[in-house]
Formats: sequence, C-alpha cells, structure tokens
Amino acid sequence: MFIDNLIEKIKEKNNPTVVGLDPKIDYVPNFIKEEMFEKYGANLKGAAEAILKFNKILIDSLYDIIPAVKPQLAYYEMYGIEGIKVFYETCRYAKEKGLICIADGKRNDIGPTAEAYSSAFLGKTKIDENIDEAVYDVDALTVNPYLGIDGIKPFVNDCAKYGKGIFVLVKTSNKSSGQIQDLLTHEGKSIYEKVAEYVNDWGANVIGKYGYSNVGAVVGATYPNQAKILRKILKNAYILVPGYGAQGGTARDVAHSFKSDGLGAIVNASRSIMCAYKDEQWKGIYTEDRFNEASRAEALRMKEDINQAISL
Amino acid sequence: MFIDNLIEKIKEKNNPTVVGLDPKIDYVPNFIKEEMFEKYGANLKGAAEAILKFNKILIDSLYDIIPAVKPQLAYYEMYGIEGIKVFYETCRYAKEKGLICIADGKRNDIGPTAEAYSSAFLGKTKIDENIDEAVYDVDALTVNPYLGIDGIKPFVNDCAKYGKGIFVLVKTSNKSSGQIQDLLTHEGKSIYEKVAEYVNDWGANVIGKYGYSNVGAVVGATYPNQAKILRKILKNAYILVPGYGAQGGTARDVAHSFKSDGLGAIVNASRSIMCAYKDEQWKGIYTEDRFNEASRAEALRMKEDINQAISL
Repeated sequence: MFIDNLIEKIKEKNNPTVVGLDPKIDYVPNFIKEEMFEKYGANLKGAAEAILKFNKILIDSLYDIIPAVKPQLAYYEMYGIEGIKVFYETCRYAKEKGLICIADGKRNDIGPTAEAYSSAFLGKTKIDENIDEAVYDVDALTVNPYLGIDGIKPFVNDCAKYGKGIFVLVKTSNKSSGQIQDLLTHEGKSIYEKVAEYVNDWGANVIGKYGYSNVGAVVGATYPNQAKILRKILKNAYILVPGYGAQGGTARDVAHSFKSDGLGAIVNASRSIMCAYKDEQWKGIYTEDRFNEASRAEALRMKEDINQAISL
Repeated sequence: MFIDNLIEKIKEKNNPTVVGLDPKIDYVPNFIKEEMFEKYGANLKGAAEAILKFNKILIDSLYDIIPAVKPQLAYYEMYGIEGIKVFYETCRYAKEKGLICIADGKRNDIGPTAEAYSSAFLGKTKIDENIDEAVYDVDALTVNPYLGIDGIKPFVNDCAKYGKGIFVLVKTSNKSSGQIQDLLTHEGKSIYEKVAEYVNDWGANVIGKYGYSNVGAVVGATYPNQAKILRKILKNAYILVPGYGAQGGTARDVAHSFKSDGLGAIVNASRSIMCAYKDEQWKGIYTEDRFNEASRAEALRMKEDINQAISL
C-alpha cells in the first residue's frame, strides 16, 4: 500500500524529501527549449515537449537519491491537452524509475464527482459492464477538505481498494492561508485543528504496517508553530510539507512535522531543485547544460539539511 | 465581460438556468455508446467519443433555450487525455452555439500555482517572450476558497484582464458541507458567512454594468435557509446554485438565491436534464433515440418551474 511503500522508499534512500515537478517553461534550460521549439514550434506542443524532456533528465539525475516526485497538475493543465499528455508521461517515467508519484491536484467536489476524480487519479474508470481502465494511476493525490467527508470518502475508498494515498490540505504554506484555516471556532479550536481531527477519522481504516495511514495531511513549512500543534493532533497521518526553500521554510521549521523516530513527514521542494542551475549557490559550479548535476547537488544538500535538523 | 454577458443571455432566453454537462458513460444512450465502441473500441477513447457525440446532440437540442452550460471537469478527467480533448471540444462547440461556458473545476492552490490554473482556464499561457496562447478559454471557472485571497487573486486578475468570471464555493449542496462550512467562529459567524464576506471583497473591483461582479458564489439549493442569509450578505455576487432536482432542491428552495428583480442567481441541473429520457416523467413520451427531445422538454419544464417560483 501507498504509505508503506513511501516509508520504505524513504528509509531505503535515507531521504524524507519529494521533488515537486512544477515545470513552468521559464524553468527549462534554453538549449532544451530551443531544440523543442525548433522541432514542434513555439506553441503549447513545443513547450510541453520541452517540459517532458526537462522532467525526464531531472528524473534520470535524481531517481537513485529521492523516494518520490510530486507533479503539480496546474503546471501541466496550463499547456492544454499537450500538457496533460506530458503529465501522464512524466508519471509513467517516474514510476518506471521506481519513484512514488504524488499528483498535486487539490481536487474536491461533492460525492459522485469526487468519485470521478478518484477514478481518474487513483482508481479505475468504468467503460462498460465488466470493463474498466486505470487512467493516470498515480500513487497518491492531494485533496481539499472544504466539502467535508462526502468529498473525501470516494478517495478513501480507492485508498483501501487500490492501496493508494491522499494528502488532505490542513494548513497551507501561503501567506493568506489563515483567512479561513486560522479562524477560531466558538469552542476555541482553529479550523486547521478541526480539519486535522477529521483527517484522523477519515484515515482510521487505512492504516499500514508502520502505523501510518494512507490518508495524510498537508502542513506548510512556513508555519512551524502550527506544525508543532498539528503533529500532536495528527495521530497516524504522514505530513506532506510544502514551503521549504523558495517559500522560506527552513530545515528547522520542517523538523516539527516529523515524529521522534524520524518518520512522519516528507518535505517538498520544487523550484529550488528544478532551477538549481540558476541559483547563486550552484551556477558558478554548473553551467546551464549541466543543470541536472546542479539539481542533484541541491537535492543532496537538501537531504543532508533536513536529516541533520531531524536528528537534533 | 462575463457577468454582463451572462445576465444578457439569461434575459434574452428568459431562463436563469445552466445545464451541467457531467457525462458519465452510463448517461449516454446505448445506441450512441454502441456506435462509438464499435468504431473506437470499448476503451477510454470509445467512451470519450460517445460522450462528445452525446454532448453535441444535447447542445444542439438546448442552445436556443438556455443561456449557459457547465461542464464538470472531473467527468472528463476520468477518461484521461481523450476525456480532456472532449472537454475542450465541448467547450468550443458550446461557445460556437452562443452559450456561456462555465468550467466546474473547483481549482485552488497557492498564488503562483493558482496563476497556472488561471492561465489554463481563463487567461493565457506564456510560451516564450511575446508569445502566449489561450488554452481552454472558458468564460468562467469554479474555485475553492480554502487557501484565502492568495489562491483567488490570480483568477480575479484574469477576470479583470480578460473579462472572465469565477464562482467561489461558499456553501456547497452536499450533506457533509457543514463539517467545515457551518462551523461557528468565536465571533458567532459561520465559515460560510465569513467566506461570503471575503467574496464581496474579492469581487469589489470587477463589477459590471448591472451591478453584479465577475466574482460569484456557489450556494447549494439544498440549504434554503443558508441561501436566504447569504443572498443578503453577498452584495454583488451572482449565485451559482447546484443541487436542484436530482439532489433534492426545489424551485421554492432556489428562489431564495435570487434578488427581487429576478436576477442574482443561475440554477444548475445536470443529471435530470442529461438523463431525462430515463426519467419516469418522460420515458413514456420519448424513446431512447429521442433522448434529446426529452432533455429539451425537461429543460423547458425546469425553466418554467423556476421562473414561476421567482415571480411569487
């Protein structure tokens, strides 16, 4: 099942991080962009093909040191049908390389519609009597809890049936996340605390052999104090932590999301790894044509940074 | 701009309803399904082509009496890349027929990612310096407010720049919507009331000539008492009302979302119109091969039902 596989990959690589594949065309090195624009034109197809090549080279350069990738659906949808093809190909390629693939889509809707989303990403789509087909077949999906259990249950059902996972937004990393998530209820609890309690309930029947549930939570690195509180409330949830690096979260900040056994959280970085070749720290060492080496160096630096902070 | 166009179409057709195009393969009449499975196989492609044909015949049968359609993205994503092509083709076809096209995707994310979603649905995607391309280019998109203004602002920017619209989830139609949305804050307001106040702010700078904003709200027909309260709070927001018909909301229930001038809301029905040919009320009159006439009859019945309730 998802959460057991994730934990085993994290242990095997000794690396509790995930690389976000959020490929804006501006992130792609010029030589790849030019090659693909030449071949397919400076259009959605050319951009999508450039991104696919970029993603594959990144995966080649990282797969032996990281447990998982997290493609962000928005960055594929923005290139239309060609972008969705690249999302699909990227997921397939990552899985072939033994990586766990977490689709970041923050999907949400009423029950029957959430069921359709779950069929798309986690389960199977019914074609006809006795015919169904897996579609994107990723390992896990991020979801938004605003509609309550009705909108979550179909995903949880597929977590049970197909051994998949979800991560429910609890406290997001952005500045204005408090507008709703920090509101205090009349009983004195914040919305993010209430949602964390729901996450415990929602995931109670899909717990794996290491005591963690296929229903995880998203808690931003940018809110370390809230992370401390949430780590205590979330009994069995693995925490997916965005906001490290480019968004300002430090290794010390993310350490709050881990349990004392060094498990319990997986930290995402996207831009800092994809664009490492543009970063002050690496661009003197690696030229643009060696962008993959810069990404690998940054991924290893991040791993060490976080492992050290956890071990303190 | 979106909201002005929508209001003009509603007035022109004298019809404050929108047809949800949420095409599960089970909704498609057998003769279409068989034709397409024969041609393309009983697979995702065959299912997607069957849905496209179904959608087009429905649109042909309805476009002169309805102002808008609302394709639900989940039901296209579940057929993979082929499904997304059908979503695109359906939107194009609806717009060619003069219909407003509202994509129901409930998208949400942190700022830069919300920007990517907005580029996909409302704005344009940057390909290179001085080259950008519209992608799905629908008229409006539903969005989820859980991340606060950061996750909404990029959409609002494109509402202003491209004359598009969004509908923010406020109080959803499903049973468990209260788990988060009904929680009372310590100041005695519910979350849905707080979100409604945000919607007023978020839409304050994109108000059209009829006094309504390009930033609307979603309020379910299944919660008429909350709709009464929300109609008062939401100063300039058009309300998109799901939950009429199959989900149990009546015309009297939805009437609360309208203002006294008969404007201010648009009521969605999906299954009751798409599957009218299966309904007790119509199946004795229209055989399956005349499914489009059944849908038209139901759409006209719904229009009368709601217009009558509003005029009371």
